Amino acid sequence: MGPLPRTVELFYDVLSPYSWLGFEVLCRYQNIWNVNLQLRPSLIAGIMKDSGNKPPALLPRKGQYLTRDIKLLGQHFQVPLHIPKDFLTVILEKGSLSAMRFLTAVNLEHPELLQKVSRELWMRVWSRDEDITQPQSILAAAEKAGMSAEQARGLLDTISTPKVKNQLKETTEAACKYGAFGLPITVAHVDGQTHMLFGSDRMELLAHLLGEKWMGPVPPALNARL
Amino acid sequence: MGPLPRTVELFYDVLSPYSWLGFEVLCRYQNIWNVNLQLRPSLIAGIMKDSGNKPPALLPRKGQYLTRDIKLLGQHFQVPLHIPKDFLTVILEKGSLSAMRFLTAVNLEHPELLQKVSRELWMRVWSRDEDITQPQSILAAAEKAGMSAEQARGLLDTISTPKVKNQLKETTEAACKYGAFGLPITVAHVDGQTHMLFGSDRMELLAHLLGEKWMGPVPPALNARL
Repeated sequence: MGPLPRTVELFYDVLSPYSWLGFEVLCRYQNIWNVNLQLRPSLIAGIMKDSGNKPPALLPRKGQYLTRDIKLLGQHFQVPLHIPKDFLTVILEKGSLSAMRFLTAVNLEHPELLQKVSRELWMRVWSRDEDITQPQSILAAAEKAGMSAEQARGLLDTISTPKVKNQLKETTEAACKYGAFGLPITVAHVDGQTHMLFGSDRMELLAHLLGEKWMGPVPPALNARL
Repeated sequence: MGPLPRTVELFYDVLSPYSWLGFEVLCRYQNIWNVNLQLRPSLIAGIMKDSGNKPPALLPRKGQYLTRDIKLLGQHFQVPLHIPKDFLTVILEKGSLSAMRFLTAVNLEHPELLQKVSRELWMRVWSRDEDITQPQSILAAAEKAGMSAEQARGLLDTISTPKVKNQLKETTEAACKYGAFGLPITVAHVDGQTHMLFGSDRMELLAHLLGEKWMGPVPPALNARL
C-alpha cells in the first residue's frame, strides 16, 4: 500500500471560466497524482458579496484583457472556451443560482454524476453561448451528462428545498472561511497544513506543494488518449 | 543560422513583487529560449491611475491571500521574497518614483547594468525590507550591482531631467497602450502577432505561444548551476 491520498478541494461556479480551466486540470490529474479530489459547487456571487470584491470585467481594461486571456488559455489547456456574446449580462444579470443549486442537489443525491453535469453546464454557457438559467437548460445539461429525464426533473424539483439551499450556502461560506474573494479556489491538505490557492494558474504550485510532477495543463498520459 | 529571435518585452516596477518573479523567470529563460528580452522599467502608480485599477492589497481578503501567495511562490520560484513589515505603507505611500527614474537612467546610459541594478532594488525592498526611496538607498543598490560610486552619483543627478522623466512616462504609456492595468506585463511579438500577458503566472502560456518548452520557474540547466 502506498501513502494515503491527500485531499484537494476545488470550490467552483459554472459562471466562472477560470473555474472551468481549474476543474479540467484537476480532473485530469486526479488519477495521475496521489490525491482525493473533492468537488465543491459554490456560488461566486455570494463570495463576491462576502469579500467585497467586484467582478474583474467591470474594469474596462481588465474586461478586454480577460476575453483574450480566456481564449489563449482555452487553446493552451485544450478546453473549448468561447466567450458569450453578451458576456456582462451573462455574468452580472443572469447569474448561476439555479445551476449551482442543481449541482448541489446532484452532489447530494448522485455525486458520481457531479463532474459530468458540471462540465455540461460549462459547455452550455462558456462554449456554446447557451442559457443556464432556465429549467429546460439545466435539464438538457443533466440529460446530456447521462441522467434520465425523470431523474433530472426529480432533482430539479428539490433545488428550492432548505436542504439544497442550505448546503450551497454552507459550501460558499466554507470557501469564504478559507479566504476566497473569487473562484476557483483549490484547497490542498498536505502534511497537516492547509493551502488555499486562488485561480486556475496555481496548479504548478499545487504540484510543488504536493511533491508531484507538473506536466502542463494537458498531461502527456491524457494527451495520448485525446 | 537559426531563426531570428523573437522580441519579448517585460514592463515592470520594483515596487511589484510579482514583477520580480516574472523578471527572474525571463532572465533565466532568455538564454534557453530563442528570444530577445527587452526590459522596460515602468511606473506602476501611473498604470493604476490610467486604467482606474486599485492595488489588490486594498481589499483585506486579497491582501491576506497575497502575503501567503508571494511567500509560496518565492519558495517555488527560488526568489528570496519576503514581505516588508509595513507592506501597505511601502506600496501606497513610499512608492517607487525615484527608483524607477533611476532605472530609466541606467537603461539610457548603461543598459548592460539594468538587470543587475533592478535586482538589487528588489533585494532591498522585497527581500530585506530596506528603503528604496532615499538617494543613499538607490546609490547602495547601484554600487552593489557593480557601478562605481561616481558613476552612480552621476546617474542619480540626471533622474529629474526631462529626458529621464519623459522616458519613464513614455514607457509607462506604452504599457498602457498594450492594455496594462497592473504590472508585470510581458509583451511577446510572435509571427507578426503581439500578445500581452499580465502577471508572473503566464510564463507557461508564453512558452506555448513561442513554441518553446516550459520547464518550470527554475529550468534544470539553471538549477544545475545554482
